[in-house]
Amino acid sequence: MKNYIDLSDIKDLQALLTEASELKKAHAALEIGKGKTLGMLFFNPSLRTRLSTEKAAKLLGMDVLVMNAGSDGWALEFEDGAIMNSNKAEHIKEAAAVLSQYCDIIAVRAFPELKDRKEDEAENILNSFKNYASVPVVNLESATGHPLQALTDALTIQELKKKDKPKVVLTWAPHPKALPQSVPNSFTKMMQKMEFDFVITNPEGYDLNPEITKNTRVVHNQDEALKDADFVYVKNWSSYEDYGQKLSEDKSWMISQEKLKATNNARVMHCLPVRRNMVIADDVLDSSSSAVILQAKNRTFAAQAVLKEILEETANASELGKNA
Amino acid sequence: MKNYIDLSDIKDLQALLTEASELKKAHAALEIGKGKTLGMLFFNPSLRTRLSTEKAAKLLGMDVLVMNAGSDGWALEFEDGAIMNSNKAEHIKEAAAVLSQYCDIIAVRAFPELKDRKEDEAENILNSFKNYASVPVVNLESATGHPLQALTDALTIQELKKKDKPKVVLTWAPHPKALPQSVPNSFTKMMQKMEFDFVITNPEGYDLNPEITKNTRVVHNQDEALKDADFVYVKNWSSYEDYGQKLSEDKSWMISQEKLKATNNARVMHCLPVRRNMVIADDVLDSSSSAVILQAKNRTFAAQAVLKEILEETANASELGKNA
Amino acid sequence: MKNYIDLSDIKDLQALLTEASELKKAHAALEIGKGKTLGMLFFNPSLRTRLSTEKAAKLLGMDVLVMNAGSDGWALEFEDGAIMNSNKAEHIKEAAAVLSQYCDIIAVRAFPELKDRKEDEAENILNSFKNYASVPVVNLESATGHPLQALTDALTIQELKKKDKPKVVLTWAPHPKALPQSVPNSFTKMMQKMEFDFVITNPEGYDLNPEITKNTRVVHNQDEALKDADFVYVKNWSSYEDYGQKLSEDKSWMISQEKLKATNNARVMHCLPVRRNMVIADDVLDSSSSAVILQAKNRTFAAQAVLKEILEETANASELGKNA
Repeated sequence: MKNYIDLSDIKDLQALLTEASELKKAHAALEIGKGKTLGMLFFNPSLRTRLSTEKAAKLLGMDVLVMNAGSDGWALEFEDGAIMNSNKAEHIKEAAAVLSQYCDIIAVRAFPELKDRKEDEAENILNSFKNYASVPVVNLESATGHPLQALTDALTIQELKKKDKPKVVLTWAPHPKALPQSVPNSFTKMMQKMEFDFVITNPEGYDLNPEITKNTRVVHNQDEALKDADFVYVKNWSSYEDYGQKLSEDKSWMISQEKLKATNNARVMHCLPVRRNMVIADDVLDSSSSAVILQAKNRTFAAQAVLKEILEETANASELGKNA
Repeated sequence: MKNYIDLSDIKDLQALLTEASELKKAHAALEIGKGKTLGMLFFNPSLRTRLSTEKAAKLLGMDVLVMNAGSDGWALEFEDGAIMNSNKAEHIKEAAAVLSQYCDIIAVRAFPELKDRKEDEAENILNSFKNYASVPVVNLESATGHPLQALTDALTIQELKKKDKPKVVLTWAPHPKALPQSVPNSFTKMMQKMEFDFVITNPEGYDLNPEITKNTRVVHNQDEALKDADFVYVKNWSSYEDYGQKLSEDKSWMISQEKLKATNNARVMHCLPVRRNMVIADDVLDSSSSAVILQAKNRTFAAQAVLKEILEETANASELGKNA
Repeated sequence: MKNYIDLSDIKDLQALLTEASELKKAHAALEIGKGKTLGMLFFNPSLRTRLSTEKAAKLLGMDVLVMNAGSDGWALEFEDGAIMNSNKAEHIKEAAAVLSQYCDIIAVRAFPELKDRKEDEAENILNSFKNYASVPVVNLESATGHPLQALTDALTIQELKKKDKPKVVLTWAPHPKALPQSVPNSFTKMMQKMEFDFVITNPEGYDLNPEITKNTRVVHNQDEALKDADFVYVKNWSSYEDYGQKLSEDKSWMISQEKLKATNNARVMHCLPVRRNMVIADDVLDSSSSAVILQAKNRTFAAQAVLKEILEETANASELGKNA
């Protein structure tokens, strides 16, 4: 693949999942990335994504440069033609071009503001890097998507599933803050690719972007949705219709063992961090129902598969084009 | 060793010191840690500990992931059964389990609050990582101990001593701030293991925890204690009895060449950073009496010996148990 | 070379530039730095300098330790004989000596305050490290110089020049803030070494330190200076005479295609970050006139050549002196 910005960048999902599985089995230090550099640029904090992606890169032999745009006070100008006499010291055109001189792959994290839907959906930061960088760009969670998480989730379900076409339920859960829709968006797109029996359940007012959910069944009755589920993916998100708002904190949507009784002994998933006894109850997280730690483990190998495929494609392109 | 949380984790101190000495002589890049990751998690700032441990890990071939829990705003919940609706986004149970997926060893620094003795002595953060992590845990200075510093100190004395059983004096010195007891605690435990002629001297009200000092002689007259000393270990600490308080700033306890006259040409030690002309005078630090830079140098090799022993034991365990 | 603190540390400039060119052509992972550590200490923020130097070190096989003196709140005492009872916890004597135990090369960035000319010119931080460190010291931009940038600039001009002795013009340009003179100072010294046809142009009141400009022609009419230029190096700086002040924001000094008409199809250079349409116009930066991205790329190889030469000299010295 050339970039990994959205699930549409995946050419062959089964091949990518197989690669990730094999990297996990081997868990070895490889040499393919020797002398290559991954630059990770964070406009927002990150723990798991940083650690797993850094580890993935190093297992491939790559060097890693980490930049915190926030704490380094690196205010970027994105407007074309701007007269830069304010506090913004560098234009994205130079920033992306310069990072491309030091990095063989650039990975970017940039959350939504959750104020203006159009602005968030423009994915200004990520798309600017894609436009102005001369090297591949990887999405470490953007305003509207988190495709590395979705790949981990697919890998985890593939590992755990006991039937070809399991029933997978994505359920909204309460949370004290208004959160982005990036994780449920990407999970939905991934489930559509996997062709599982996929259902989304959320309170009214919390329907995700219909251009993403498309034909996926959306049910407003959680109990009905959970029936016979093999996997329950739990996540809070803010409203898409009433954009970025927290409409309710309905505690009855929290996932507990009581809720799981109607399922087919479902495995419970969450991207973490998870608020215990708010989003998911202790009796689930501390039981064998939980798959959340496995998901976290698999992030390393999902990232490694993506970085490896990008490195391979870049090597091929440079050999073919003699433009090394 | 399985963990390195307290000096009691050391199985064979002489073997560990010999290993550290040999690593120092070789000062070479090893391969034993290739493909392995050390995660260092700081709840408090660190310079020397971070640099020396990071260098030690890299000399073993390990990759290093550094996390600043403070600046990354990673507020952890430690209470069992908590309903997580406050500002704490992740429970220690997930945090420790997730880090265990990315790291082969987790090293943690967490200072005391110096407000509530019972709370500090519970070593909540460090023990939670020990309980919930599935990989070995190393103490990078906790509320009540700094065992990597103590190992460095033992290595330094072993290098410099001119007789089998030197007289070692740990002396309190004045400081403008109230400091933890972690360094003197661990140094005391280490000296007890080394079976040197060990004396502690401090003003009244500054006696360390009697469960740690045990039978060690504690003298409240500094001049008397210093007589014929071969090593003088200087350190400020706050009161244990009047917990966490600074009772005095008695300048007469500062170590100077004048004070050293009564000693047996003693070498002066300090864990650094040191306040010049407050804790130790220029005429000592700028003279050949000082061993503080050697102590700092030895931190790399003490950490390297600990990490190497943990890696070896983990490799053995996984081979025996076939649970790789 | 022993240190790289100022251009005067360069023994053979042509050899160094040739080395940088060859490292650029090879762009390979080397082993010379294996088991060696570069410590980078930042008293001020850095993006490009950090990334390019870190990449350079890693391409040589070195490990890199990064320390942010600012954010880690590491307040250093520089005064000799100080009684350290204030907020400064460590003296530069210990700091430099300790870092020398963990690092084989120490690189330091410390900007000027732009308040007191004498104080800035004393280069207190950098010189203290030079005095008290026992390993080589590299300047990552100090109060009065930026020699790694100047080496990059020389490398870039050497790559692009179409005649032996091109005309190079360093021109002041407007900027909303008062900036240091470190980049124009070092560029001036470098151009004097290269023996090009070198001219400086700036508004009256902005003449650089005459001890640096020496016999270099300084012209206060920009149009006159630009005539037939092969290279135009654009940079803002604050006044040296009226030390550290911003005297004007004269927009007519901005470099645009209109301004370049009088040149010999000049290539335009800037150390970045650059304020678009304030310092240099879009029509230059977005055209083939611009060489700024090439300059940024070359920073890696300039740093790599410097680090490599220091490593080689250290290895030779230690072999000769048997003081390894």
